This record gives sequence, C-alpha cells and structure tokens, in this order.
Amino acid sequence: MSALYQKHRETLDKAIDACNKRYSWTAYPESPSSKIWGQEPPLAGKARFESMLGKHYPSQQPGEIGRTGAEISPYTGEPLGITYPQMDIDVLYGAISAAMPSWRDATPQTRIGVCLEILDRCAAQLFENAHATMHTSGQSYIMAFAGSGANALDRGLEALAYASKAMEDVPGSATWERQFGKGGAARLHKRYRIMPRGVGVVVCCATFPLWNGYPAMCASLATGNPVVLKPHPAAILPVALLTTVAREVLAEQGFDPNLVSMVADTRDEPATMPLLQHPQTAIIDFTGSPRFGQWIERNCSEKLVYTETAGCNSVVIESCEDLPAMAGAIAHSLCQASAQMCTSVQNIHVPAGGIAAGDGHASFDEVSAALVEAVDRHLANPQVLCGTLVDEAILSTVDRYRSLATEHGRLLRDSAPLDYPDFPNARTASPLMLEVTDASRDLYRDEIFGPVSFVIKSESAEACLLDATTNARECGAITSHVYSRDEAFLDRAEQAYNNAGASVACNLIGMPINFAAAYSDYHVSGLNPAGNACLADLAFVANRFRIVQSKRMGS
Amino acid sequence: MSALYQKHRETLDKAIDACNKRYSWTAYPESPSSKIWGQEPPLAGKARFESMLGKHYPSQQPGEIGRTGAEISPYTGEPLGITYPQMDIDVLYGAISAAMPSWRDATPQTRIGVCLEILDRCAAQLFENAHATMHTSGQSYIMAFAGSGANALDRGLEALAYASKAMEDVPGSATWERQFGKGGAARLHKRYRIMPRGVGVVVCCATFPLWNGYPAMCASLATGNPVVLKPHPAAILPVALLTTVAREVLAEQGFDPNLVSMVADTRDEPATMPLLQHPQTAIIDFTGSPRFGQWIERNCSEKLVYTETAGCNSVVIESCEDLPAMAGAIAHSLCQASAQMCTSVQNIHVPAGGIAAGDGHASFDEVSAALVEAVDRHLANPQVLCGTLVDEAILSTVDRYRSLATEHGRLLRDSAPLDYPDFPNARTASPLMLEVTDASRDLYRDEIFGPVSFVIKSESAEACLLDATTNARECGAITSHVYSRDEAFLDRAEQAYNNAGASVACNLIGMPINFAAAYSDYHVSGLNPAGNACLADLAFVANRFRIVQSKRMGS
Repeated sequence: MSALYQKHRETLDKAIDACNKRYSWTAYPESPSSKIWGQEPPLAGKARFESMLGKHYPSQQPGEIGRTGAEISPYTGEPLGITYPQMDIDVLYGAISAAMPSWRDATPQTRIGVCLEILDRCAAQLFENAHATMHTSGQSYIMAFAGSGANALDRGLEALAYASKAMEDVPGSATWERQFGKGGAARLHKRYRIMPRGVGVVVCCATFPLWNGYPAMCASLATGNPVVLKPHPAAILPVALLTTVAREVLAEQGFDPNLVSMVADTRDEPATMPLLQHPQTAIIDFTGSPRFGQWIERNCSEKLVYTETAGCNSVVIESCEDLPAMAGAIAHSLCQASAQMCTSVQNIHVPAGGIAAGDGHASFDEVSAALVEAVDRHLANPQVLCGTLVDEAILSTVDRYRSLATEHGRLLRDSAPLDYPDFPNARTASPLMLEVTDASRDLYRDEIFGPVSFVIKSESAEACLLDATTNARECGAITSHVYSRDEAFLDRAEQAYNNAGASVACNLIGMPINFAAAYSDYHVSGLNPAGNACLADLAFVANRFRIVQSKRMGS
Repeated sequence: MSALYQKHRETLDKAIDACNKRYSWTAYPESPSSKIWGQEPPLAGKARFESMLGKHYPSQQPGEIGRTGAEISPYTGEPLGITYPQMDIDVLYGAISAAMPSWRDATPQTRIGVCLEILDRCAAQLFENAHATMHTSGQSYIMAFAGSGANALDRGLEALAYASKAMEDVPGSATWERQFGKGGAARLHKRYRIMPRGVGVVVCCATFPLWNGYPAMCASLATGNPVVLKPHPAAILPVALLTTVAREVLAEQGFDPNLVSMVADTRDEPATMPLLQHPQTAIIDFTGSPRFGQWIERNCSEKLVYTETAGCNSVVIESCEDLPAMAGAIAHSLCQASAQMCTSVQNIHVPAGGIAAGDGHASFDEVSAALVEAVDRHLANPQVLCGTLVDEAILSTVDRYRSLATEHGRLLRDSAPLDYPDFPNARTASPLMLEVTDASRDLYRDEIFGPVSFVIKSESAEACLLDATTNARECGAITSHVYSRDEAFLDRAEQAYNNAGASVACNLIGMPINFAAAYSDYHVSGLNPAGNACLADLAFVANRFRIVQSKRMGS
C-alpha cells in the first residue's frame, strides 16, 4: 500500500462513510478564524499572496512560448500583474503523453494517495487561496476561504471517495474454472486492469474557480487520466496554486509533474477551444455559462462531458411560520456573493392573494416588503456577505433590468454601489429586485448572472409551483426552495420539483440557503438544463476509466 | 420488499457475488439436452415455434397501424410468414409517457424484481427462443439455445446485478445537522430519489438478437426507464418473444405493459432512425455494425449511447506446446457460427520464420497447414458448429476475398457450401482462409463479417504483436489471443494489447475460445473502436438514472 494512501486512509474511509450515509461532515475547517488557525497562518497566507503580485508566476511546464494573464482585482480595480505561461498546446500534450504510462500503471491506491496529499496540501494554503480568490473572483474573504476553498476541497475528497468505490468494484484478479463438454475442465487465471481514457480538461469558472476544479481533477487523476486545468481568464491564480501543489506532489512521488498542468489565457486570446477539440482530450469537465456548456454537450460527442452550468433557481412561497425569518433566509441568498453563485435564488413566486404567515395573513405586498427589508438588513455590513462583482458586464445587466422594471411591473428595490471602507474602488451592486407577474415569464426564465431577482405574482400557490417547476424543467435549476406549513403542499411541491428533474429544499431558515453540503447534497441533478453531471455520484467517476483484462490458461 | 424481489433475491445475491469475485457461475443452464430438461420441453418449444409460423404475432401495443416483418429462415430459404405490428411511433411514445410515472415511483427493488421475473420466464422459453433464433439469425440449435439464449440471460442478470449495486449506493434518506455561526443548529431531513432519464431504445443485432437485448433492457428498465426494443429486420421473433414476456410480467404486477414495447421493421422500410432521434429517447443501446455504431456515437450526442460493434480480432502466435491443440482452438473460432460472432477470430499473425512448437519447430507453412487441417477436422459435423449465414451478402463477401487471394498472397483454404442433411437449402459457407503478408494490412484491418480469415506473415513475433495491437487500437477488437510458451513474451503481449485498449487471452486450448463468460469477462473494453460500453460494469448502469433530493428543515 502506498505511503500516502496509508497516511490519509482514515480521511478517505470517513469520506466514504459520510457519502454512504450522507450526514454532516467536513474534512477541512471552513472558518479562517485565527481562533482555529492561530495568528500567523492568516498573515503568512496574505503575505504569500502579496508576494506573487506583479511577478511571473513560476512554472516549469514544457511548451511555454510566452506569458499571458490579465487578472484585475474586483476590489481595487488594479491589475494583479501576474503572468502565467502561455502554452504551445501540442508541445504540452506531447509531454503529457510521455507522462501517462507510469501513472496508468500505478495502482489505484497509489493514485488516490497522491490526490489525497494534493488536497491536504491545498488545505494548508487556504489563506493564500482565499486572497487569490478574493482578488480574482471577487468573493469576500470569508467566502473565498470557504466556498472555493474548504467546501470545494470537501467536494474533491467526495469525488475521490466515489472514484475509490468505483475502482474497488473491479477485482484485480480471479480464477475461473468450468467444464466444456467432455473435454475436461478449463481453468483460467484472469487479471483485470483499470485503464484511463486520456487527457481530462477541466474548465473552471470565474466565480468559484475550484468548486469543480478539485473534484474534476481528483475524479480524472485518481482514475489514471492526466489533467489540464483551464482557468477562466478572470481567475487564474487560484488554479495556478492548485497546479503548483499537484505538480510538486507528483514529482515528489516519482511521477511526471506534467500529469497536471494549466493552460491560462486572456479574454482576447482564448485557449479553451484547442483544448476541448484536441484529439488526446478524452474527458471534459466544464463549469460556466449554460450556453457554452450546452455547446460542449452537443459538439464534443467524442469526449466524455461533465457540465455544471446554471438555471433560474426559484422559491415558491405558499405560507410560513415566521415571515421575517423566511424573508431573511431568502434575502441572504439574494445578497450572498452578490447572487453570483450557482445556488443563488432568482425567482421568488408569491400568490397574488398573499400567504398565511404566523398567526395571520401577509398580503403579496407585505411579503415583498419583508423581502426588501430583509435584504436591507443583510446589507448593514455588506462586505462579508456580498463581496464584489466578478465582471464589469454585471453592472450593465443590472442597468438593463432596472430599465425593464416599469414595463413589466415595478422596481421593488433598486441596486446601488456598496460601500467598502477598505476598498473604495470595489466593483459592487446591491440586489436589484423587480416585481412582475407571471405574464412576464420570458423575462425571468433565463439565468441572470448577478444580483437581479424577481418577486413574481401568480394567481395561486399552485400556479406559482407550476411556473417554477416548468422553468426548472425547461430552463434549468440547481437549487429550488419551497416555504409552506401545509404538509400536503410540501409533498406536492417535492413531487413536482423532483419530477421536473430538480432537487428542492423546504422551509430552510436560520442558515445560508445557498449552502450545498459535500457528502450529503447531490449537487446538480443532471436531469435539467443546468448541467449533466452531479457532484458527486458513481456516474461522475465510473466512466472515467475502462477495464481491460487478460486471461491465461493454467497448466 | 416486493414479492418478486423476494422470490429471486437469492439469484440476484449470487449474481452480485459472482460479479464481485468473477468466478464461473451461471443462473441458466446452457445445454438443451433432454437429460437436463426431460423429453417434453424441447418438443413443446419446437411446437410453439412452429405454431407461430405464418401468423400474425399477437400484440396489444397501442399505435399499431399495420403489419410488418419479412424474416426468412437461413436454413430453409422460406419466409417465416410471421407479421408484427407496424407502429405509429408517436402514438406508441404517447402511451409510454403515460406508463412512466408509476414505474418511476416504484422502488428499485420492485423494478429489479420485475426484471428478474422476466429473465426467469424467458429461461422457461429457451427452446422456442432457440428455434426462433435458428430460423432468423441462422445459428445452430445448440448455439441458439446457449449464445443468444442462456448466456445472454446471464448477461441480463449481470446487468441487473450492477444496476442493483449502483442504486444501492444511493441511500433513501439521511438526517443532516450542523452549526452555522452562532445561530443554532440546522437540522435537515433529506430524501434521495432515483429518477429515470427517459425512453431507452435497444437496437438488437441480426446474429445474436438478445445478447445485448437482455442486459440493455434490464439496465434501463431496472433504473426506471421504459424500453423500446428494435429488432434487426432479419431477426424479429426472438425479440418479440422477450417483449411478450416482459409485457405480461409488467401487467401482472399492475404496471403498464407499454413500459416494454417492440418496433419491428423491414429492410425496405426501416424504423430505427425515428426511434433514435425521438426527443423522448434518452438512452440508446446499439449492437451492430461499426459504421452505424460510430454514426450513433457521433450524432446522438444528446442521448446516452452504449455501443458494441466489432473489430478485427486477432491471434498472435509466438510459440506453442501442442500445435494441433492450438490450431484446433483457433480453427474452432473460424468455424463457430460461421465466424459471425463479435468474438470470432479474423487475423492470425504468424512469424515468417515459423515458431517453436512442442519439442520442435514448425515453419510458417506448417502452422498454416495445421490451421487448415484443424478447420477441416471441425467440419466433419458442421451443422452444430457452423450454423448458417444470416445474410445473403456474406456469400458475396466470401467471393470478393476469394478473388483477392492471389493478388495479395494465396488461398490457403477455399470456402464451399456445407452439407446439412436436414436442411438441403441452408445458406452456408465453410471458412475461407487467405495467406497474406503484413504488406496487405489494408485488406485485413476491417471487420469482415462472415467466415473469412487471414494467416498473416510478419518478420517476427514482435512484428506480429505490433501489427495486431495497432489494429486493435485503430480498428477495434473485442477478443484477442496470444499463444506463447515464453512468459516474458506473454507479459509483453498482455501489456501491448491492454495498452491498445484491448483484452487478451493467452494459450486457450480445449475450450471454445470465442466464449465470453458473464460475471467474469468484461465484454468490450470501450477503449477501442469496437464499442464504447462494456457488458457489464458500473459505467453500464450508473448514468441510466439520476438522483434528485428533497430536504426539509426539522422543527
């Protein structure tokens, strides 16, 4: 058994157990508090991040033909000034080819051990990753430490747990013996080998660079495939940090570091297509826009494709126990990471006649007002919750929907810049909230990336549910919420969402409702347009390897 | 627990154990001997087959708009005269849609129980299936009973075992509890639901109609998907028999029989494309020609596609212990089912300088001669071993390669009709064997469907291995064989075939080398052009369903 596998085995076993039983567990603490870490690591992480600014990011990848990268901090508006290798793809792929055989021939446990060590070392650099994520993706420090940090590492470990289960299902060898006619017994010794498919390209998104980065890398690498990480041009540094760690661990273990590499680019000179279309690319993991995701699903039919994109996540409100608590929970989703999460709520469906709330009744307008108030309450200290906008274009999106408000209904809450004392130039926008009726459904049936949401008036709770679930089925949904005190309605809502291919959460309050728990929540169903893959299930890993066998007749 | 699941649970458990350990086991006896079955069942099965001839095959499928079917017995040259429903696809799919919800909402164990019962009842009609297969696919009676009968049923049970394992991996529910900040504990009750994808279309081949029929049907049906069976126009009846059984069992269990249906056609009015391209079709299982299989893989990118096609299966001979025994084993493959099996050998690679054999040496010509002699020996009683040719076109294929012999090398053995006393009009051809050099590799790098094989002269055993493995990688292979007494050569050969994405068998004698054992042999690697799927592994089943969840906050 490999030493690294041995070292981390307990963690892996615990992860497998958590996946099987789906209770709450984490291998990586998600709080950056110095009460946990001590004073020094947070400061050291920040210092390491700052030491990288304005420099060539160190890299030893074969095929470097120049430098690229044009990241700009959404907090300062200033370029990070870090350059990354610009790659000659064919030279890189040539080096990857040379690296493959020894990795293919290593045991699954050896490969899993290497992946576990990579995750472990990434956990030790969560502070620099947090600053890197903050100044590229624009997340708040706390969110950057957790969401694209510790939580994403848990997703990586979860993917490893499934890869381990799927590979364990294949025995190494067997003896097989039977009679054929009267000719005596045939006795065969059989060996079964797990074989990789080829290069796995992992296309990371701008907002949560490593949310799929860790799991996709782990799933492909553990099953024997080399991995090429393709960061979004806006968020290269977090991916570069992972790449460096992975290459270090591989090299230390006597493997070719080119088993993990990174191809960075800029918006002006994109490098994604040559990677997707390279004949040696066998697997594509994509997180990003629904449009590009669907293009890949349709046009890369000779590759295995795993996508997570986005949908128009909904809330259906039928009734509630505690209006301010419910409004607070929903408003949290509208604010968190400026609604740039794949789990952010966009469409809030409320019956025109209002709802039963607590001991009384709340009119449609009262529900809307409660939501607006709750958003305003969350904005008391916006920096931690909202972070910044990853992309300038989101400001135009906000403007566009503001201008549509009167035509389709009314502006419930206007968006405005947020004030971050530490970062006077931060690119920010508070939630824009529109009230519309379901006659305007064309307006809200797409994912609108950024802090734009709709309170949608429908004739009844059933009409709300029908609209929301139809949109989930046809336009995609990653999270969906229902609030109701009526058990029968909750049952119907669960059925309706599930049958639309969407998961659903009921009556969540007092917690961040965007939260998806590794080892417990199957993230993305694969049954609606918001993606074809799930973090993580057996289907996420079982086809990344194939099985070949050899059999020999005994004497 | 469902009664049918309970009834067959021991069989399922045993199948799962056999898959996990991959020893020799069968749930369905493959011999039609009356010593096992008694006198009556074989006669009754034949009578039942004969009673169907010249009649409308009974069917209750919604959307029947006429009758179709033009099967001709390769043994008699006479039409079977059986007609099958010609279907209005949209009407049928409408009925299937209506059938889906209750099947989707049944438990996995209920669905698996139904599938186990279907297999069990099919096992009870193996005699009529054998006659049906004989007079459509053209197999011999013995082969028809086993190959597309009992052995295929084992493959079906194997697929169920994997479906069961994959679905068991998903727990039904969980309780999840954690702290968020100082706000107290969030406690969620979670439920996980297995959801089907949509209609599974199973395209069966002419020669072994149910080899993929049972496993693909079981894999899709057990995971909640309705199944439409699409028989090859030459071999409808065996598929119709399965369809009838499946519909009967479903109806008896209170499910809509339209969960399994059949769409038959003729060569002149094919019905496959509308099924493949129907928007409700979510899964395609295909067995047939490499060309059509590749077309489906490339052009049905919005569906899940599982293919098993064909390749140019090879033998590499480096040395052997017993030349006649080896030649006999290889010749058996050239004769069995007239080399119309996906596991039939086509290319026999022999070093120009001959081989070490037993205590002495055998020249290239002596090896060739031994192979020809062994074929002739097998032809002493050809009906059982060779069967007939499924298609008239195979005779032209034989003619074409005969005419190419002199240009590329020489004719080692000519093909001729075989003499079956019971069936004077049987369409038959004994093996055509060509001697060529590897300069003619373009000639033998495609699958040639039917009894055409090549003894290929290369400079050395290493050159033989290189040619054979290159062809496996580039043109596909389902089985590959090596004969050698040199352990180091065997090791190299195993590596070379495996690294080409092909499985390999070493030194098989005294058994039918075409034989692929359910529960033990992973059939088709998915790593070379001979198909993308394997009978059966987790990847064959894990993506046929998806998971949706619902979570509710506890009080």
